[in-house]
Amino acid sequence: YCKEIFKVLKAHDVRYFFYIGGNDSSDTVRIVNEQAQLAEYEFRAIHIPKTIDNDLVLSDHTPGYGSAARFVASAFAGVNLDNRALPGVYIGVVMGRHAGFLTAASALGQKYPDDGPHLIYMPERPFSRDSFLKDVKKAYDHYGRCIVAVSEGIVDEEGKPMISKLTKNVERDAHGNVQLSGTGMLGDLLCDLVRDKLKIKRVRSDTFGYLQRSFLGCVSDVDQREAREVGERAAHYALWYNLDGSISIQRTGYYSVNYQLEKLSDVARKTRHMPDNFINAEGNNVTDDFRYYLRPLLGSGYPVSHRLRAPKVSKVLRTED
Amino acid sequence: YCKEIFKVLKAHDVRYFFYIGGNDSSDTVRIVNEQAQLAEYEFRAIHIPKTIDNDLVLSDHTPGYGSAARFVASAFAGVNLDNRALPGVYIGVVMGRHAGFLTAASALGQKYPDDGPHLIYMPERPFSRDSFLKDVKKAYDHYGRCIVAVSEGIVDEEGKPMISKLTKNVERDAHGNVQLSGTGMLGDLLCDLVRDKLKIKRVRSDTFGYLQRSFLGCVSDVDQREAREVGERAAHYALWYNLDGSISIQRTGYYSVNYQLEKLSDVARKTRHMPDNFINAEGNNVTDDFRYYLRPLLGSGYPVSHRLRAPKVSKVLRTED
Repeated sequence: YCKEIFKVLKAHDVRYFFYIGGNDSSDTVRIVNEQAQLAEYEFRAIHIPKTIDNDLVLSDHTPGYGSAARFVASAFAGVNLDNRALPGVYIGVVMGRHAGFLTAASALGQKYPDDGPHLIYMPERPFSRDSFLKDVKKAYDHYGRCIVAVSEGIVDEEGKPMISKLTKNVERDAHGNVQLSGTGMLGDLLCDLVRDKLKIKRVRSDTFGYLQRSFLGCVSDVDQREAREVGERAAHYALWYNLDGSISIQRTGYYSVNYQLEKLSDVARKTRHMPDNFINAEGNNVTDDFRYYLRPLLGSGYPVSHRLRAPKVSKVLRTED
Repeated sequence: YCKEIFKVLKAHDVRYFFYIGGNDSSDTVRIVNEQAQLAEYEFRAIHIPKTIDNDLVLSDHTPGYGSAARFVASAFAGVNLDNRALPGVYIGVVMGRHAGFLTAASALGQKYPDDGPHLIYMPERPFSRDSFLKDVKKAYDHYGRCIVAVSEGIVDEEGKPMISKLTKNVERDAHGNVQLSGTGMLGDLLCDLVRDKLKIKRVRSDTFGYLQRSFLGCVSDVDQREAREVGERAAHYALWYNLDGSISIQRTGYYSVNYQLEKLSDVARKTRHMPDNFINAEGNNVTDDFRYYLRPLLGSGYPVSHRLRAPKVSKVLRTED
C-alpha cells in the first residue's frame, strides 16, 4: 500500500512528502521513505503530528489534542450545571482506545470542589465493574448526584475491552478490532448496570462520538498556532536542512514550546500512555500534575461557570404544614 | 404542587416571583399567580422565557435557542469535514420532542453546496422509513456520502414516536411519555436500518444528548445579551408597572428585537412549531427562509470552514500499472 504511494510520488517527480496524522500515519511516512531509499530516489519525507489522542511518543503533546480537550472540558462543565439542576448519574463516554488523555481532560470542566466529573476512568488502569459501582454509590451518596467520564477504550484486568465484556453484540473491523466509536452502546450498558445494581432512577449517558474530534466551535488558539508551526518546521527541515523525520513538540516553560526532529523509526507505531503521576492512586481520577500539564493547551478565553452566593434563607414552613 | 410553591412564597412574604423556563414553567407561573389572586395576596408573577426548543408561542425566538443552535450548527460543520475525510453515512440525533427548530439549525453547518447535512428530519413532518432510505440512497449515490440530521422526536404518519416503532424496549416516564434523551437508541436503530437495507458499510451515528443544551464553549453573544434583557424587562414590568405576564421577543429588523409582555394564559402550555415556509416540500430539509431567520441568532464569530482550491493534477499512473 505504501509502495503504491511511492510509485505515484515518483511518477509525478514529487521530491517532498509531508503527511499529517498520528501513529499509523508516521509509519506510512517511514515506509514510503524506505522505498525511496531502496530506489536511491532523492526524496524527503516528514511526518507532521496531528492526533486528538495525544499519544505520540517523544512529544509533550500533539496538535489536535488541545482543541479536543477544550471540547471535552467545556462539555463536562456544562453537563455539570445541567446535572446540578436535574440530579442523577451522568456518564459521558469519551474517545480513546489506548490512551486516556482526552478522557482525563474532562477534569478541567470542574471549578468548585463539588463539581463533576466526580470519577474518571482511563484505559491505563483496569476497569472493574465492582469498584465502578462502589465509586458511583459513594459519590452519589455524598453529592446527591454523580458525573462520570469514561474512556471508550476501558479494559478489564485481562486487557479485554469492557464493551465486549458487557455484551456479545459488537461490530468488528477487518483487523478484528472491536468498533468502539459511532455507537452509544458502552454508555447504555453502564447506565443499565447503575440502574440495576444501585437502584438509582435518573441515569443518563452521552457518547461524545465524532463531535469531540471535529467540533468547529471551540478551537484552542494555542493548539491552532502550534498546528501551523509544526507544519512550518516540517517545511524548514525538508527544504533548508534536507532531513527526514517526525516533528515533536517539547515544552520549555509555562507555557512555551520548542520543536524537534525525531527519527521516524522512534515514533512510528508507538503509543504514549498517561504517565503514572497523572492518575490518582485509586485509578478513578486525575492528579493536579495533569491539570497543570493540560491547562495551557486549552488556550485563551476558556469559559468558566459562576455561582450566586446569596445567604441561605431559613426555613419558615415545615414540610408537614 | 404549584399550591405548595405559593404557600412557601406567602410564608416568606415574597411579593415577586420570577420564574425562568419554557412552556411548563410558564404554566407554573400562571397557576401560582391564580393562587395569589384567590388569596387576594398582593403579588406579581412573571415568566422569563428560556428554552433551547424555541417553541414558545408569540415569541420570534427564545433565549437559549441561539446558543444551542450554534452548538448544533458547529457540530455539523465539523462532522461534515470528518465525513469528507472518511466517507459514509452519518446520522446526528438532535433534541426536540415536538418542534424541529434545533434540528433545523444543523443546516447552518453547511457552507459549500455539497456540504452536509444533506437531509434534515423534523417532528413537524411524518417520518417514513421508506422515504428515509430512498433519500439516503439518493444522497449517497450523488455525494459518495450522506449526513443526516434527525430530531429525537420524529413521528410516523399516525403520530407515534419512531423510536417506539423501531423497538419495543423503551423507557417511559411517570406520565407514560417515551424517554427520548439520554440514550443512543434512535441513532443506533437508524444506522442498523441503513446498513441492512442499503448495504452501506460505514454507517455511524451520534446522539448529541445533553451537550447541545449545556455546552459552555460556544455561547452566542446575541443570545446571551437577550437572555439578560428579558430578565431586566421582567423586573421592569413587575416593579415599575405592577404587571404579571410572560416576556416575549419580537424581531424588529435584521437584526434587532423588542420585548413585550404577554398574558400568561396566552403562552402557558402552548407549543410553537416550525412554520411551513421553513420546511421544504419533501419534508427532508429546511428553506432559505429558515436560514435567514436563524443566522443572526448564532451571534458573532461563528466559525466557517475553508477549502484549498489548488488545480487538480492530471493522472500519470494508471491503476493497472
